[in-house]
Amino acid sequence: MNLNILEDINSPEDLRKLPAEKLREVSAALRKFIIDIVATKEGHLGASLGVVELTLALHYVFNTPKDLLVWDVGHQAYGHKILTGRREIFHTNRRLNGISGFPKREESEYDTFGVGHSSTAISAALGMAIASNLKGEFKKHHIAVVGDASIASGMAFEGLNHAGVTKANLLVVLNDNAIGIDPSVGALKQYLTKARVGYKPKQSNIIEALNFKYFGPVDGHDIAGLLEVFKQMKQIEGPKFLHVITTKGKGLKKAEEDQVKYHAPGKFRPDTGELLPYDTAGLPLKYQDVFGLTLVELAKKNDKIIGITPAMPTGSSLKFMMQAFPERAFDVGIAEQHAVTLSAGMATQGFKVFCAIYSTFLQRAYDQVIHDVAIQKLPVVFCLDRAGLVGEDGATHHGVFDIAYLRCIPNIIIAAPSDETELRNLLYTAQLDLKLPMAIRYPRGRGVKTNWETPFEEITIGKAKSLKEGDKIAVLSIGNMAQNAAKAIESIKTEKIGHVDMRFVKPLDEELLHVLFRKYEAFITIEDGTVVGGFGSAILEFAAKHDYKAKIRNLGLPDNFIEQGNINELQEIAKISVEYIREEVVSLLQNL
Amino acid sequence: MNLNILEDINSPEDLRKLPAEKLREVSAALRKFIIDIVATKEGHLGASLGVVELTLALHYVFNTPKDLLVWDVGHQAYGHKILTGRREIFHTNRRLNGISGFPKREESEYDTFGVGHSSTAISAALGMAIASNLKGEFKKHHIAVVGDASIASGMAFEGLNHAGVTKANLLVVLNDNAIGIDPSVGALKQYLTKARVGYKPKQSNIIEALNFKYFGPVDGHDIAGLLEVFKQMKQIEGPKFLHVITTKGKGLKKAEEDQVKYHAPGKFRPDTGELLPYDTAGLPLKYQDVFGLTLVELAKKNDKIIGITPAMPTGSSLKFMMQAFPERAFDVGIAEQHAVTLSAGMATQGFKVFCAIYSTFLQRAYDQVIHDVAIQKLPVVFCLDRAGLVGEDGATHHGVFDIAYLRCIPNIIIAAPSDETELRNLLYTAQLDLKLPMAIRYPRGRGVKTNWETPFEEITIGKAKSLKEGDKIAVLSIGNMAQNAAKAIESIKTEKIGHVDMRFVKPLDEELLHVLFRKYEAFITIEDGTVVGGFGSAILEFAAKHDYKAKIRNLGLPDNFIEQGNINELQEIAKISVEYIREEVVSLLQNL
Repeated sequence: MNLNILEDINSPEDLRKLPAEKLREVSAALRKFIIDIVATKEGHLGASLGVVELTLALHYVFNTPKDLLVWDVGHQAYGHKILTGRREIFHTNRRLNGISGFPKREESEYDTFGVGHSSTAISAALGMAIASNLKGEFKKHHIAVVGDASIASGMAFEGLNHAGVTKANLLVVLNDNAIGIDPSVGALKQYLTKARVGYKPKQSNIIEALNFKYFGPVDGHDIAGLLEVFKQMKQIEGPKFLHVITTKGKGLKKAEEDQVKYHAPGKFRPDTGELLPYDTAGLPLKYQDVFGLTLVELAKKNDKIIGITPAMPTGSSLKFMMQAFPERAFDVGIAEQHAVTLSAGMATQGFKVFCAIYSTFLQRAYDQVIHDVAIQKLPVVFCLDRAGLVGEDGATHHGVFDIAYLRCIPNIIIAAPSDETELRNLLYTAQLDLKLPMAIRYPRGRGVKTNWETPFEEITIGKAKSLKEGDKIAVLSIGNMAQNAAKAIESIKTEKIGHVDMRFVKPLDEELLHVLFRKYEAFITIEDGTVVGGFGSAILEFAAKHDYKAKIRNLGLPDNFIEQGNINELQEIAKISVEYIREEVVSLLQNL
Repeated sequence: MNLNILEDINSPEDLRKLPAEKLREVSAALRKFIIDIVATKEGHLGASLGVVELTLALHYVFNTPKDLLVWDVGHQAYGHKILTGRREIFHTNRRLNGISGFPKREESEYDTFGVGHSSTAISAALGMAIASNLKGEFKKHHIAVVGDASIASGMAFEGLNHAGVTKANLLVVLNDNAIGIDPSVGALKQYLTKARVGYKPKQSNIIEALNFKYFGPVDGHDIAGLLEVFKQMKQIEGPKFLHVITTKGKGLKKAEEDQVKYHAPGKFRPDTGELLPYDTAGLPLKYQDVFGLTLVELAKKNDKIIGITPAMPTGSSLKFMMQAFPERAFDVGIAEQHAVTLSAGMATQGFKVFCAIYSTFLQRAYDQVIHDVAIQKLPVVFCLDRAGLVGEDGATHHGVFDIAYLRCIPNIIIAAPSDETELRNLLYTAQLDLKLPMAIRYPRGRGVKTNWETPFEEITIGKAKSLKEGDKIAVLSIGNMAQNAAKAIESIKTEKIGHVDMRFVKPLDEELLHVLFRKYEAFITIEDGTVVGGFGSAILEFAAKHDYKAKIRNLGLPDNFIEQGNINELQEIAKISVEYIREEVVSLLQNL
């Protein structure tokens, strides 16, 4: 085996010059390359290891980039990136100014469609295929590679349902490894599992019923077999579907054995897969765990509590509830729309549902929040995980629109805890006798204190928390921005600056705001969400309504998409870092 | 036949006291009652006529309201409303302070879940069924009645996919009439059609593959047959599915023959179904037709133009494009998510897609607008039909959040025409060489001028249009609110009031705004969307950023859901009527 063979492959064209027999060598080299880099630079591992052979076969048989290849979600596209001219910069993956962890159009002509959220590939590839037909390019191939967790999402079904009545030259490759980030769920998954073990409906299957020509299942690690089947499929017109069975983490034993952990394992030994020790002693818990453990604590006393997650039991830490109360906790798969309306249905029967969804993914269920929850004033609790900047996942995953898109909805309470104690108390408050829906947004990652397990205290809805008195400038922060604001203010060392943790974006603490606007000359609002229509705008609306003339500065994310990087870097770029807040406060103080 | 038999039925309990043989009589009476009222009071006709027998059979066999019945969409629930205690107020249907045109929780305990948007019923009913199991109420029945157009939407699939792995006592009734508002489309519809004509897959079908027990198809107008099958199904545990074939408009010949027109036919003769003449001579066209006809005009010259509608070819008037350029216009069914990402896929290949979606339904594709279109700066054009207050459809259908939920998205242009000429010119501008996505929002119903077919003029993106000069107060209106504002200002008769049609919510005409803020002492913003985070907030943000101290009043919809009524009534309630604007301007003028 020549594990340096990758050095001669700078594009799929180079790959296609090799004899097919060489591809096993390439697959070994590619797998090693991915493992070596991810072991030290971190990132998503298992998904890309699982599709090494599939990636090679696709680029070998199809004429990329003329044939258009769309990866769904994109966790699995590392091999694709390495083979399409990005091998030498692959070590910058997910870093500031480096390459994105997902396919991205501006990065390469081989990245035909930007992804990150799931289940978009079929619709996108179908759009391309219809476009090709309109251009008379009937021989062009359009391929969507979709995982078995993603294909169960409603959007994927919509794509299949439309494709089946077109003459689009579309190939859907189902990368079936029986797992997304957590194991796949749902009836379709059970059906696919039957197909995996050899059960084959004689007359019809779901895919054929939707007018696709169905092939498979085939072994996704048998490269010769894949080449053969793809060559055959190139000859078939119209929508077609190949069911490929792969193993997530293939080729690294530990990754195959613990597929959840090795989805994105952090640093590990490339030879053995052994995770490198990471000393968490003395570190605060993650907000996710504070949520998950607190929910269990509450659920022990309140048997009306139900937990729901769309496909993120591990990431959201709803897994604790699923372990403690399996009958009252549900992973519904990648189905945010369903998750929200299911919660609403349960709420009509008197249950208090905590629906844990990442901020960026609640965008998928926006209509359901308005139409099924808010209009009916159903007291569903949205636990908006990964709100604000999320770091290395980048533009597709930052949870930065939620304040703006939720704030315009009537009837909804929007809260953001400034630390873990606040999160606990908000969760406690949410399960009391609220008559309205409530969203609690909190960031990805660790909190700020280790003594998080404090006794519960009810928080009055709409009441802010004064952190520091002053007399010239009031800093109004929401959520975890309280931390940056407090550090900035502390460093200035003056009695002039006041600081309030507003806690609630909606309803605002108007009583306190009246007091503040009568007292202070200027205000700075700080949020880790977009400044357009966000928390700061709520303060502007309040001030305008009551004719307060104080200067108001809104700090928050600027009106552009923010790329990947670590949180500190991104806070600098977004001008919500401690240093930037300090500068703003000082500058405003000087200009009063 | 005793057509007065309804007078003895004030609840399903009364119905259940009747011998089964009487139900044919009840069905005739119920059908006549619906026809008589809708003929004079207007409303949705065809859907409810199609489910008369189904409605009776469900309430007869199941123990409503203890058994929980969820209607999907709800156009078909008139019979249900009449049978559940609302017969005597049914003539107030869709009127201000009357009953809602859709099931609504606060209206009746028989309306278990508020609907309006499609495909929510399975998720909601499943939530109720799981809740019943948790409460130990294992004998309770939960029934979702879903149309064949609605079940093809992704959300419905998500509900089925989850239900199939539960022990929920859920019955999904597919009301298959092969039409939604327009004829159903898609591969699933073709599949169901085969089932309608007797084709029965021997081993498996889609529904059974998802672990439902499948029954049918049965004749939905054979009441005895329906009673029999429902009685059988009550005995079956777990998720089950009944495929019922009905005829939309059943019992009124003309409604059966022209199902699209008789979905909501306006006034007609109850005996014959003949539509009452409605003189449109001299009236302006609908904005929808201006859109549809203009798109055809543009598409003749620009072969890159594609039109897409999710299931609203008639309502949006994309039908004109579908007739003129069938290969470049697509009805993708109730699949807003797919519609948007399909558009994005086409846009990557150089096409200019006009994606026509009702404002309220774009909520269903919010994530796709952000993630698939805006991040990638793909120049898709969103034609946001029925933006603002829509009238009689009420809270579920008002398109009042779009400005707020779109404005926070980077890279998107948001425009709103003040009249038909502006709409035409915006459409014309949108198909020029724009490098960004654009949303054009316009209201439901007729425009304001008859000479709409003016020569095209390009509108500079982000440029407002000054309508009247003044020196004290500037009224900044967006979209069709220009009309109300102009009337209000005209009535005041002073030179002090200026008026600007801002045209663009994003980007704002900042150059002009600087001029205005240096000149005027006060501002009134007017929009027919929520004031929370809307156009007015954009003006507040601009003013705060530049330290302008002018008084600013934001007029727009208050922060609560607005019910049904006619547009004038609702504008009064929302305080955006001519009279209210006038009062605001006068009051502000007096207080300067």
